[in-house]
Amino acid sequence: MFTRLDHIGIVVADLDTALQTYRDRLGFTLLERIEIPEQLVEAAFLEANNSTIELIAPTDTASGTARYLEKRGEGPHHVCYEVDDIEVTLAELAQQGVQLIDETPRRGVHGRVAFVHPKATHGSMIELLEKDAHHK
Amino acid sequence: MFTRLDHIGIVVADLDTALQTYRDRLGFTLLERIEIPEQLVEAAFLEANNSTIELIAPTDTASGTARYLEKRGEGPHHVCYEVDDIEVTLAELAQQGVQLIDETPRRGVHGRVAFVHPKATHGSMIELLEKDAHHK
Repeated sequence: MFTRLDHIGIVVADLDTALQTYRDRLGFTLLERIEIPEQLVEAAFLEANNSTIELIAPTDTASGTARYLEKRGEGPHHVCYEVDDIEVTLAELAQQGVQLIDETPRRGVHGRVAFVHPKATHGSMIELLEKDAHHK
Repeated sequence: MFTRLDHIGIVVADLDTALQTYRDRLGFTLLERIEIPEQLVEAAFLEANNSTIELIAPTDTASGTARYLEKRGEGPHHVCYEVDDIEVTLAELAQQGVQLIDETPRRGVHGRVAFVHPKATHGSMIELLEKDAHHK
């Protein structure tokens, strides 16, 4: 069902401070730093060999990420798997009775995405990503 | 510093129920199910193409995992990276001022392991793994 692990998303309070840890101390390579205004967050993708992490920090107290931080604190937030055809995967999951946050895909940073409800996956939120051709 | 992502560890309340989700509904392949008596947990390693997850459930209310569950609920618990030489990595991290749970390696399921303190990595606990030769 899942083609490959794309990244692990980690919510942090402040992106610059978190980059000091992950890039400067732990040696991850910064791939990309972007603002996602529609979600009121900024994010950084960092790589360590075969794997990528995404650090996500709120840019406004009204963002969902700010509420998440307040409730749960900093830490792992989601695991993103690439899929070949996001509509097919969503249909398969629905057929399996897996509760979804997004019944239909929406735009993400690197393609179309949809989130599986953490209640359906024992607290670990799964993001599905169908990458845009130019991000493959 | 990190050779490759080895697995993502997810704490769950009950291993059988979680396997119904991850193996039966999400299509992960069960690699190995084991009891770890010294930690009072049982664990299952599951694979989806390029990535592995470890589901961890307490077998006794006295386990650290049971206390974690009570406090934080089910969800992502740690991210495990393979390293070539765990002593060298621990020394590098200490030199960087990164707070460690384990100053010296201990036995894990697949080799020698050590945990970085989640306070040092913005709430995301990192496990270092130097694999035993026969697990490579």
